[in-house]
Amino acid sequence: MGGVYVLGINASPRNYGNAYKLLRIALEGAKSVGSEVKLVNLYEYNIKPCIGCVSDDQKACRYPCVIDDDMRILYEEVLKADGMIIATPVYWFNVSGVLKNFIDRLTVFENMIIIEGRCWIEGKVAGVIAVGNDSGVIMTISNLFATLNSMGLIIPPWALAYINSKVDAFDNENAILDSYNLGRNVALLAKILKDYKISWYESKVDNIEKILETIKKEVSKNYEKALKDRIPKISALKNNTSV
Amino acid sequence: MGGVYVLGINASPRNYGNAYKLLRIALEGAKSVGSEVKLVNLYEYNIKPCIGCVSDDQKACRYPCVIDDDMRILYEEVLKADGMIIATPVYWFNVSGVLKNFIDRLTVFENMIIIEGRCWIEGKVAGVIAVGNDSGVIMTISNLFATLNSMGLIIPPWALAYINSKVDAFDNENAILDSYNLGRNVALLAKILKDYKISWYESKVDNIEKILETIKKEVSKNYEKALKDRIPKISALKNNTSV
Amino acid sequence: MGGVYVLGINASPRNYGNAYKLLRIALEGAKSVGSEVKLVNLYEYNIKPCIGCVSDDQKACRYPCVIDDDMRILYEEVLKADGMIIATPVYWFNVSGVLKNFIDRLTVFENMIIIEGRCWIEGKVAGVIAVGNDSGVIMTISNLFATLNSMGLIIPPWALAYINSKVDAFDNENAILDSYNLGRNVALLAKILKDYKISWYESKVDNIEKILETIKKEVSKNYEKALKDRIPKISALKNNTSV
Amino acid sequence: MGGVYVLGINASPRNYGNAYKLLRIALEGAKSVGSEVKLVNLYEYNIKPCIGCVSDDQKACRYPCVIDDDMRILYEEVLKADGMIIATPVYWFNVSGVLKNFIDRLTVFENMIIIEGRCWIEGKVAGVIAVGNDSGVIMTISNLFATLNSMGLIIPPWALAYINSKVDAFDNENAILDSYNLGRNVALLAKILKDYKISWYESKVDNIEKILETIKKEVSKNYEKALKDRIPKISALKNNTSV
Repeated sequence: MGGVYVLGINASPRNYGNAYKLLRIALEGAKSVGSEVKLVNLYEYNIKPCIGCVSDDQKACRYPCVIDDDMRILYEEVLKADGMIIATPVYWFNVSGVLKNFIDRLTVFENMIIIEGRCWIEGKVAGVIAVGNDSGVIMTISNLFATLNSMGLIIPPWALAYINSKVDAFDNENAILDSYNLGRNVALLAKILKDYKISWYESKVDNIEKILETIKKEVSKNYEKALKDRIPKISALKNNTSV
Repeated sequence: MGGVYVLGINASPRNYGNAYKLLRIALEGAKSVGSEVKLVNLYEYNIKPCIGCVSDDQKACRYPCVIDDDMRILYEEVLKADGMIIATPVYWFNVSGVLKNFIDRLTVFENMIIIEGRCWIEGKVAGVIAVGNDSGVIMTISNLFATLNSMGLIIPPWALAYINSKVDAFDNENAILDSYNLGRNVALLAKILKDYKISWYESKVDNIEKILETIKKEVSKNYEKALKDRIPKISALKNNTSV
Repeated sequence: MGGVYVLGINASPRNYGNAYKLLRIALEGAKSVGSEVKLVNLYEYNIKPCIGCVSDDQKACRYPCVIDDDMRILYEEVLKADGMIIATPVYWFNVSGVLKNFIDRLTVFENMIIIEGRCWIEGKVAGVIAVGNDSGVIMTISNLFATLNSMGLIIPPWALAYINSKVDAFDNENAILDSYNLGRNVALLAKILKDYKISWYESKVDNIEKILETIKKEVSKNYEKALKDRIPKISALKNNTSV
Repeated sequence: MGGVYVLGINASPRNYGNAYKLLRIALEGAKSVGSEVKLVNLYEYNIKPCIGCVSDDQKACRYPCVIDDDMRILYEEVLKADGMIIATPVYWFNVSGVLKNFIDRLTVFENMIIIEGRCWIEGKVAGVIAVGNDSGVIMTISNLFATLNSMGLIIPPWALAYINSKVDAFDNENAILDSYNLGRNVALLAKILKDYKISWYESKVDNIEKILETIKKEVSKNYEKALKDRIPKISALKNNTSV
């Protein structure tokens, strides 16, 4: 298994708070299986909001982004990374605005599907850390999981860690272990996959017509059966005079 | 302001746990402003899962539901209620399965829009309590807020209360106060609205064509401006040879 | 019922796109019941990200925000408004980054609870419009519903409208009607509540101890019953030798 | 790479609808890389709701579940599977109640962490299909992603497929391709990982104290710096007389 590079992204303005602490622990987990790591503090970069070019012209959204700002540095880091760990404070049951801008600007990679048939960050491995004084961490993590997976990223086992109270991360054994394992798993899965050259999306499936034909027949049979029991019972309701 | 009736729905199997406790407190809040209240333990009712008639025949889903089970009793309660407070344990960042079945079965009221132009539970007032040993409460509450509002229910101020740790509800002053106010607000807003006979959805807007015409002109003007600055910048990217 | 003021917030960079169109329609709905309205394009304002002061010092987060930018203008608008309609494009199953910054910066109003016992925007009425070429609208709206309600705002019936495909808003009758009714309902409920001076959160409940005492007795009784049937069955499992 | 077994779980009552169709296509994708597959229709099984034993006694929730019903059959299937594809109709922006019960009942596997230190379904690979006539698919998928990952499952690239309109699945090329690739990726990643015997959660990290010590020093340095610039600016606000 080759060497891997894991990028830690701190989306909190406080590089001494719980998001930062758990992220650092996660990166140690990544190092424990031989990964090279780097931590970037998003708030130190000037990241302008996405301006939604794709809605005006779907082919306009492509790498490099039309906006010339510090994302150019971060784009390079993301491309280089085999794994990515995002740590965000929970602001209103959601990511920080700075992280939202970062995420939105990653669209240039994903939209390369339209341009050249392949998302540029497909197959990378990702984990998410969310911390807050209160609840909302799962809503935040869920949203990022769906987002990252829709960009083709892989979520390894136990790829979430969080704190939802005012405790200091250093006093929260669960969060410490979860973060360490999260980092370890991101790096571990990235390492395993490093040796495989997998294209994770086939835009043409040779025998798809034949496959669909078979399934259609099967579905027809199921439907015919439903037409005998389920459907009549349901349709009778329309004339239900008791309503 | 007339008298109101607030229905408390306990979706936990444990009528001695935190969901139950906070729900009881909420109902006291409702009583404090003169509401009549009732608490039902969903687990004591036999509520079968929705079988999705609406996908076979959109007009088949109507009150009363084709399934003859204890929902018939609960449907009556829901119809009678001016306000509804749902208390659920958080199972996997989501409602309990029993509550899910209850929610799904309410579709018969909502689908009356298709049958006769009006949702039967529109305009009622609702609040949500979610408790768990861990996070996920906001994801659960958010989902219910969107669902209830899509059935035409009103969410009064501070209509959410929760516990996301192993604390006993009776020892959690915040959750106690939040629940009390939640109940009070559900009843209070229901009382205020009791005297108004409002139809909250107009399916015909008399002058809609004229309105749209005006807006179209305005949007055209905005678009013409965009064609001079924003769009050319974006479209130029398609031919960006640096890509 | 007095006059009300409804603020429309366009969180899309495109003031000729679907978010803008539906927002304009919603504002017409608000006008139809006598509301004064105003539309602001968030992208025309310089809104810096929240820097999370509250985590360093809970009393530091207060109005006016320490950050001196265009939010000062928007804060005034929000305070003045009786109702608020937020229209956002869906970027990665979530609000635009610009809207996220706007939302996060509203914390100064909510945190006045800590400073002086009352959220400054409590009791206002809100609705949400979300548009995208694809899914994610409900996740976006749900998150905003939970957020706005946690700031004390009221969600009137049918306060959501959305588009989740590439259709032009002007060709989508459902979205047009939903938006119009959304605006109407925000204004209508704001009008009704204008005459009431309601404090929606009581931080002291006079007889709370007595109330809790009664509930505790009731819960004890339930628990005693559970100790006879439910619990023994469950606890027996621990010694289940078949495992 | 060894042979793998992928379990398809249809959570729709209609074995002729879009959920079923896309699930079948996904299973063909799994077969295309040599996987053995099986499809189960959840509605054909009697799955009672979880009764939350874990809240009464954390060690009571263990495999086999105290409830004796058809889950016993499904538990066997889940244990045997290397990959799992869940297809659900979207009922109120969420899974069907039958699927909710199935998910909740999987807790017996996850809670084996408490009993014997390891989740029994850790390391399996999962994908999610959600279909509806309307929006809510992403909220549904997000919730399942967070849930499955919290049970230790892996989400491969592009592990989501959905339909959010009334189109027939067979007429939706995107959904067909997405489903096929989803199934292929679940099987492919399961195959790759089959040869590795990885324990994905280390509950003891040997040198954790030393690691934390290093991080604490680093955080202290960051905090000291903040004490000189960031914090004073923020704290000054408390005495801000302009408020």
